[in-house]
Amino acid sequence: MTADEKYMQLALDLAASARGNTNPNPLVGAVIVKDGVIVGTGLHRKAGEPHAEVHAFRMAGEHAQGATVYVTLEPCSHYGKTPPCANLVKDSGVSRVVVAMQDPNPSVAGRGIQLLRDAGIEVEVGVLEEQSRRLNERFIHNMLTKRPFVLAKYAMTLDGKIAAHTGHSKWVTGEVAREDVHHIRHEVDGILVGVGTVIADNPSLTTRLKQGYGKNPVRIIMDSLLRIPPHAHVLNIEQAKTIIVCSKGVEQEKITALEKKGVTVLPVSREREGLVIDEMLEKLYQLGITDILVEGGSAVNASFLQNGAINKYVIYVAPKVLGGRLSLTPIAGHSPTSMEEAWDVEFDSFDKVGQDLRIIAYPKKGEKK
Amino acid sequence: MTADEKYMQLALDLAASARGNTNPNPLVGAVIVKDGVIVGTGLHRKAGEPHAEVHAFRMAGEHAQGATVYVTLEPCSHYGKTPPCANLVKDSGVSRVVVAMQDPNPSVAGRGIQLLRDAGIEVEVGVLEEQSRRLNERFIHNMLTKRPFVLAKYAMTLDGKIAAHTGHSKWVTGEVAREDVHHIRHEVDGILVGVGTVIADNPSLTTRLKQGYGKNPVRIIMDSLLRIPPHAHVLNIEQAKTIIVCSKGVEQEKITALEKKGVTVLPVSREREGLVIDEMLEKLYQLGITDILVEGGSAVNASFLQNGAINKYVIYVAPKVLGGRLSLTPIAGHSPTSMEEAWDVEFDSFDKVGQDLRIIAYPKKGEKK
Repeated sequence: MTADEKYMQLALDLAASARGNTNPNPLVGAVIVKDGVIVGTGLHRKAGEPHAEVHAFRMAGEHAQGATVYVTLEPCSHYGKTPPCANLVKDSGVSRVVVAMQDPNPSVAGRGIQLLRDAGIEVEVGVLEEQSRRLNERFIHNMLTKRPFVLAKYAMTLDGKIAAHTGHSKWVTGEVAREDVHHIRHEVDGILVGVGTVIADNPSLTTRLKQGYGKNPVRIIMDSLLRIPPHAHVLNIEQAKTIIVCSKGVEQEKITALEKKGVTVLPVSREREGLVIDEMLEKLYQLGITDILVEGGSAVNASFLQNGAINKYVIYVAPKVLGGRLSLTPIAGHSPTSMEEAWDVEFDSFDKVGQDLRIIAYPKKGEKK
Repeated sequence: MTADEKYMQLALDLAASARGNTNPNPLVGAVIVKDGVIVGTGLHRKAGEPHAEVHAFRMAGEHAQGATVYVTLEPCSHYGKTPPCANLVKDSGVSRVVVAMQDPNPSVAGRGIQLLRDAGIEVEVGVLEEQSRRLNERFIHNMLTKRPFVLAKYAMTLDGKIAAHTGHSKWVTGEVAREDVHHIRHEVDGILVGVGTVIADNPSLTTRLKQGYGKNPVRIIMDSLLRIPPHAHVLNIEQAKTIIVCSKGVEQEKITALEKKGVTVLPVSREREGLVIDEMLEKLYQLGITDILVEGGSAVNASFLQNGAINKYVIYVAPKVLGGRLSLTPIAGHSPTSMEEAWDVEFDSFDKVGQDLRIIAYPKKGEKK
């Protein structure tokens, strides 16, 4: 690891510490180094608050003169809620800027780097770029597609079952893995299930962490015909906001009744296989949802799969074997006739989480069916 | 790692190098050390050939005087195809014997160790015992149950599918994982599938390794009604032996026709769910089959699961997602009503095998349904 990588790693670690709190903004960390000594550190803590560079330069003060600044994302060049950081960096007196990756935001996209170079500052781009891209996978996806980043999560037995044929599934995984899921809930804007899950399990879909903190994501229920039972826990909007996605053309009366409860109802088009996923995602993004944890059931998971709409898989495999011809599997839906129709993914990591195995995977690049 | 453990590890490595060649005997390695120098090494290469200790003492010659011998399994005390090793060790002049584990063979079971202790030799038992038990899991199971050790192997997608609903499954895993399976075939006495797999895929079930070597296991087909097609590849007994397990009471004519082809037909009792697994295993062991790789299909896997007859799981998870309500899963059979009916296992290892993930797991100790 070079010195540049060492400082950039620290900046990435700082950035990551705000995970779940900066949406819709990216996670950014900054480190300022003068003569081998760290003189400034900062991170973006929350949308609306100062950017990472601002904190780092405040800390560095006059030590910034002739220093090197490491920043995990290109300094912004546009006026948003805060003035452009590229100007701040330019005027700070630093002699060198190391950037992990260019900002994918179309209103920056290299302009921040160019501004610094035009001012005669040495700029290096691409140090620990892969790590930075992974850290901001959600933000990059948002910028490039104007859609929420979709994580599909399921917990299955070693023989690929999520529940008995009766629907009984308590529990597939152990306590540690279930707590791990609540950490993910804390970090995402939205959590989505089908109305079938609401009818069968009546979950509250809130974030329950042992430490007591935990931000509740917006609950999104796919319910094309508005079959949701009136006393479903997810309709208690004092706990968390709820969006119900239904089919265009359902009776206005049903919509009004739900809206009276404070629920947002979002009608989208319908196609043969169900609601149009892409249209739903576009509308959810417009409502400020930048990432969604999809928690099933298996028909909902299948809709996302078949629309190429899954951006990341978080899969727990429990050390148990259920068997059963009729037992439920994580992804159902349309039945392909050949193994060649499978969607390729790339394994990212395998980790033991308590007694269970957690597999993180991403759709294979360029995969489109 | 202590010096004892270091030498025992070498003895275990020597033992393991004969994997697949010693059945029905255990894998055994021996190392003789005099004044910190290894003066003798040996391993049991093949049933009928000398035991590990014999090779090691031949190599050590007079250096064995006052030396320490490390052996992965208690030296045998009975006359088998070779004279008892305990006598050899006793008469060798060594002053200390370190043994990883007691021999589970009821005709040894501590008698070898006792013989040495009675001769005034210092004997230590239990160095790297866990590793030795794992190395000889097959042999230990044989000795304690008089049944073959059963490995269940399947390859599934990340959403728990082994094939499309049409049965199409070529291929779930990549080349490296498929070669890995052929290494297992090389190491086991028997490979078992249901007749459904024979009818659907007409496999030859031989060992095909890139290096060209490879021992073919005996092919065992569960076919209660003798439905096997006359031109099935597994009936070509010039390639490998074949045992067909059928239900007692099938027409003698069918049995005779198969026997004329050189196939062994093994009738066992039938119960509601199919052939009686334990009776079959008992009879197969009597025919000299000490371990079996069960390769499906999902109904056969379920029979073994529901009879508590799986001793080890070797599972490949491919980086692909198939989906499909009707897609096939690795273990089918009887459908439980609750997740609590699942069989608990313990994860042993997770390894990347080419592009795929290999999970090794064992039934949880004491688990009986």
